[in-house]
Amino acid sequence: MTQFLAVISSDAQLPLAMLLVFGSAKVWAEVAERFRQPAIVGEILAGILIGPSLLGWVSPNALLDALAQLGVMFLLFRVGLETRSSELLRVGGTAAVVAVLGVIAPFLAGWGIMRAWGHTSIEAIFIGAAMVATSVGITAQVLASRGLLDRRASRIILGAAVIDDVLGLLVLAVVSGLARGRVNIAELAISGTLAFGFTLLVARWGTPTMQRALPHAQRALRAPDSDFALAMIMLFGLSLLAVYAGVAAIIGAFLAGMAMAESVGPRVHDLTRGVAELLVPFFLVGIGLHFDLAAFASANTLLLALVIVAAAVASKLLGCGLGAIRLGRAEALRVGVGMVPRGEVGMVVARIGLGLGVISAGVYGVAVAMAVLTTVIAPPLLHRAFKREGIGNGE
Amino acid sequence: MTQFLAVISSDAQLPLAMLLVFGSAKVWAEVAERFRQPAIVGEILAGILIGPSLLGWVSPNALLDALAQLGVMFLLFRVGLETRSSELLRVGGTAAVVAVLGVIAPFLAGWGIMRAWGHTSIEAIFIGAAMVATSVGITAQVLASRGLLDRRASRIILGAAVIDDVLGLLVLAVVSGLARGRVNIAELAISGTLAFGFTLLVARWGTPTMQRALPHAQRALRAPDSDFALAMIMLFGLSLLAVYAGVAAIIGAFLAGMAMAESVGPRVHDLTRGVAELLVPFFLVGIGLHFDLAAFASANTLLLALVIVAAAVASKLLGCGLGAIRLGRAEALRVGVGMVPRGEVGMVVARIGLGLGVISAGVYGVAVAMAVLTTVIAPPLLHRAFKREGIGNGE
Repeated sequence: MTQFLAVISSDAQLPLAMLLVFGSAKVWAEVAERFRQPAIVGEILAGILIGPSLLGWVSPNALLDALAQLGVMFLLFRVGLETRSSELLRVGGTAAVVAVLGVIAPFLAGWGIMRAWGHTSIEAIFIGAAMVATSVGITAQVLASRGLLDRRASRIILGAAVIDDVLGLLVLAVVSGLARGRVNIAELAISGTLAFGFTLLVARWGTPTMQRALPHAQRALRAPDSDFALAMIMLFGLSLLAVYAGVAAIIGAFLAGMAMAESVGPRVHDLTRGVAELLVPFFLVGIGLHFDLAAFASANTLLLALVIVAAAVASKLLGCGLGAIRLGRAEALRVGVGMVPRGEVGMVVARIGLGLGVISAGVYGVAVAMAVLTTVIAPPLLHRAFKREGIGNGE
Repeated sequence: MTQFLAVISSDAQLPLAMLLVFGSAKVWAEVAERFRQPAIVGEILAGILIGPSLLGWVSPNALLDALAQLGVMFLLFRVGLETRSSELLRVGGTAAVVAVLGVIAPFLAGWGIMRAWGHTSIEAIFIGAAMVATSVGITAQVLASRGLLDRRASRIILGAAVIDDVLGLLVLAVVSGLARGRVNIAELAISGTLAFGFTLLVARWGTPTMQRALPHAQRALRAPDSDFALAMIMLFGLSLLAVYAGVAAIIGAFLAGMAMAESVGPRVHDLTRGVAELLVPFFLVGIGLHFDLAAFASANTLLLALVIVAAAVASKLLGCGLGAIRLGRAEALRVGVGMVPRGEVGMVVARIGLGLGVISAGVYGVAVAMAVLTTVIAPPLLHRAFKREGIGNGE
């Protein structure tokens, strides 16, 4: 009956993986709440705990990665649904300054520390690059779960994170080019123009286009729930176009949500919320699963990791905060803290460096520790920064 | 920049797959509606169209299979949420007769036709076994989308489909044993007892246990949305236990929904509906993707396929209809039609036979054609059978 049992055991894999990842996330979310910490921190810690570095119950795999990516796409789509493009574009100038300073400061900090620590120039450049890109998913989840998406600071964070994503991919392109000894300036200019052009075009014209086109489509379609179907097609379609334009898929998802924000009914909100509730834990646990104890292999690397983590937090706080300082210190603090988490984006940069053979396993471990720990540190700081608002520092 | 481009193209895979599968499903659902056919038929045809036998845009893969399995799990969980266990148990006797006759008739029909066609005894037995198991997902989706789950016929169909699933797995165990020349009766008896014992236990005691335990858990938990988290943990947990007990994961999902039906609020309904809306198309398209043109390779196989499809429809109609005949002909017809789709379950049986090397590729193609075509034929018949109810044949 081996074949028969093989069928059974392969049938068990999916519910088992779902139960382990989702169940651990929720158990640790509950534990975090009891220690008065954000649930999101518990869910990332759950990933570290059940992942290969500790218990080893679950390893990152293609299915979990896909569920995680879907989770963060739905999260950003929902955030987009609650963002008016006109309000985002209004804070565009501030967001751009925040994004640019938030790219320069962490890059210089990471590069400087690595050079001072005696690492090669290319390793220093890769760690700097890994420190550049903010993982907007983490901040978005904290802001959304606390109903703070309509604040001015939230809009600046979202706008800056979008710009930061494009800048981060350009930095990655330059750094990857350097690792191979050739940087093609013309190609970079085209990539940058395409990425910014796509983003601006959809941000500016997406909403009015949808306002005009959607009612026609809704009248023409006869299948049940065609609203939700159209929303999903926009979500996956713009995510795909974003990737082709050189922007992350989740930025496309965010733009899709924003384009539809003023033309879809509450039913689309409710249905997409269900998907996000199910899949966002896979995104959070997934970050924890990639945690790597290599960073703690020696006292020297451990110390380096701690210094890099501190620098990663401080450089975004100062860089992004400086960009928003004219709105007051409290608001600048909120913006700065919101840009701290590096999450999955920092890890992708480090993995590319490892794949190119230009950074060592130890340095890779440092980058992963930086990505995971900034992500765990940010949510409680963000709670605190926004809590002060009650005292009267709001807009 | 190859590495950089590789990152981009791997980022594109997920949104591209989601867009192709979900988008095609919805386009063809719309086309089906315009021809006054159920949307579900359009979504299965979309799978045939974009799959390897025709356009070749998408091939079945592990990710799509997992999304399909999740989709049908959420579908059955939602159907469970709308089913009262007391009402299901009340029609248990009728459902058992329907299930048993609905296993015997298709098996004998399939076996007899294959023997008459000159095929080997083991091929005849495998085709018979593939014709046994009903794919409850298809019928459940039709009934749920038309708000018919509370009808007596619907409850009989659901009850019979659950029993049919256990019987089908036992038949599969016997048939696999025969293919290897040994059938372990003691093992079969234990499997059967375990499977029926688990199902009856959860069906009978799940609801009162949840009614007692859930309010305690809800009061004790502090994390936000703990209701939904508990529901998901029950869903994945019971799906997993079901597999260990020798029942399909989707039966566990159905039992989990039914156990929670009387203790969760409307919010859990709304959130799970979103997941189902997104993922059920992957289940439907997935059935179509597995369609295999091998059945149409020769005039002889094509004719055999048509005869087998006709027999598969007629044998469930007559067998299951006979089991419910004391409720009147109209009701018996509804029950019989509801048990017609074989879907993914029939394909699994055929794939095992192919894997054991006891059935030819041509016979495999016939089984797949039977599974897909019964699934496409059933929804319009089901619409018609329930439409008559308006004239006064209801309960």
